[in-house]
Amino acid sequence: MRELDLLSRIYDSAVGLPDRVDIPPGDDMGAVRIGDSRVLVSVDQLADTVHVDLDATSIEKVGRKAITRSLSDVAAMGSLPCGAVVAACLPRDFGEERANSLFDAIRCTAEAYNCPVFGGDIAMWDHPMLLTVTVLAGGDGIAPLLRCGARVGDAVCVTGRLGGSQVPVDGYTHHLDFEPRLATGRALAAGKPVRPNCMIDLSDGLAQDLAHLCRASVVAAIVDADDLPVSRGAHALAADDPTKLWQHAMGDGEDYELCFTVTADKAAHIVGREVQGAVVSRVGTIIENDGGPSVRLRLPDGTIQPIDRLGWEHRGK
Amino acid sequence: MRELDLLSRIYDSAVGLPDRVDIPPGDDMGAVRIGDSRVLVSVDQLADTVHVDLDATSIEKVGRKAITRSLSDVAAMGSLPCGAVVAACLPRDFGEERANSLFDAIRCTAEAYNCPVFGGDIAMWDHPMLLTVTVLAGGDGIAPLLRCGARVGDAVCVTGRLGGSQVPVDGYTHHLDFEPRLATGRALAAGKPVRPNCMIDLSDGLAQDLAHLCRASVVAAIVDADDLPVSRGAHALAADDPTKLWQHAMGDGEDYELCFTVTADKAAHIVGREVQGAVVSRVGTIIENDGGPSVRLRLPDGTIQPIDRLGWEHRGK
Repeated sequence: MRELDLLSRIYDSAVGLPDRVDIPPGDDMGAVRIGDSRVLVSVDQLADTVHVDLDATSIEKVGRKAITRSLSDVAAMGSLPCGAVVAACLPRDFGEERANSLFDAIRCTAEAYNCPVFGGDIAMWDHPMLLTVTVLAGGDGIAPLLRCGARVGDAVCVTGRLGGSQVPVDGYTHHLDFEPRLATGRALAAGKPVRPNCMIDLSDGLAQDLAHLCRASVVAAIVDADDLPVSRGAHALAADDPTKLWQHAMGDGEDYELCFTVTADKAAHIVGREVQGAVVSRVGTIIENDGGPSVRLRLPDGTIQPIDRLGWEHRGK
Repeated sequence: MRELDLLSRIYDSAVGLPDRVDIPPGDDMGAVRIGDSRVLVSVDQLADTVHVDLDATSIEKVGRKAITRSLSDVAAMGSLPCGAVVAACLPRDFGEERANSLFDAIRCTAEAYNCPVFGGDIAMWDHPMLLTVTVLAGGDGIAPLLRCGARVGDAVCVTGRLGGSQVPVDGYTHHLDFEPRLATGRALAAGKPVRPNCMIDLSDGLAQDLAHLCRASVVAAIVDADDLPVSRGAHALAADDPTKLWQHAMGDGEDYELCFTVTADKAAHIVGREVQGAVVSRVGTIIENDGGPSVRLRLPDGTIQPIDRLGWEHRGK
């Protein structure tokens, strides 16, 4: 049983949804019209033993991550967070002080990103902690960026540096400490001279998430290994074998960076520059969908490798 | 560690929420303004071994209940469901066929109540199933009914019959098979001659949920044991001791009926009548908060018992 198979079953059944569903399942956020407003919604689970290790992580960082990874979805739509509701299922022996620290961290993180927690549900059981965060967002006049829309010839760009998000470097562990790219996503979506054709956040690894973009847009992509911006964590992992650098940059999950495609002329305005705190790198090009693999990698020696689904399917791991 | 203590910590911290949070934590649904719309949101968890027993329940009924118990919150606000997102954490050995049946049941139930599932998240782990359903609703011109607003002299009313929701009677098991009181809640909220002063849905048992209403409204309530509408399930449980009838009607959880208070003149229009498929019963009266227990029960012999917190705290059981 693979989570992607289950998800695709849900997406396939999106046919026949009522008109008020503006963005059906399959994007970083879904959207529904309520009154005159388009309301974007995403839901993410943070499970002890799956997405986080409570034995090895401070409770404050767990609470923080529960919110920031949901906000990464909002960033990917170029939208603004409006509020969140949080459900928690806690082991009975979790401890009240620890529970309070957890909720304080969740609330403070959410407020810091202007995303107040305005509802929730708490249950207790004899199994590991599971947090479920639902975030609501609005476009406030800017159309959300979807996964579909990439066109042949588009530059494939990413923010920040990729790979090795689990590796602590000088006290910073990216998958716990990252800043969701809300300001960058918003600036890209709002800026006519740079507005991407499509966008996604990198949670499963560039190989897999770029493949999602390609499939949604019915195109393919070629990535240049030499152009990948590699994180310090990935450098640490590949210290004994630099040829592994691109594997970590393409395959590791939980970068929580943005990946987008943009026309070549727009790309010229932003590639190599900082957009609201994040440096944009061009890593490849959108090519025609010829029925082959969605994502291909051009290695330094010029050979081209198919790399669909190299990414880390972290939710089901 | 009690879930109510944790919840009250979250509610207390609602002070200082931004203006766009219309309904802070503590009601059946919270609400936030997005654009020009007020968006109501509730989140509920359905955990195997806590809220449902997967070994003893068909997967279709599990999927159904995940949606209907969330819709009961919408009914309690007198609002209209707009859509839902569903997060599922499934044991790795759950089985694909069973997972598909579960999602089909969730989707079909949601669609039947005009509440399309437009997003979700799936994870897998080595622990029991946990479903988390977030429902969005709108007022569509009708102000939502809150828990606060009960006034001294109000009639305390309920819909349907109470207690014994776990007991199968002629193939009907209320906690699995109930219809959320969406049409009744809406008719009450929308009807000026009958609009309640406050409303809640009965998930933790009348004693506890009425106490929530009283605390939110800073009043108390007196309930007449003789006036309680008792379900067939509760009758079955109290067959050997009819004095236990009121205990089941007041204390058992998961009725998913509506409890509301309404001025005496408005009550005359609806008590003993059917409102959109649900018979309304008057079970008591709102009295002043004199610092004593929030809810008191007048027994058939005229004695009065305090019964705060008799209800079933099902989420933490």
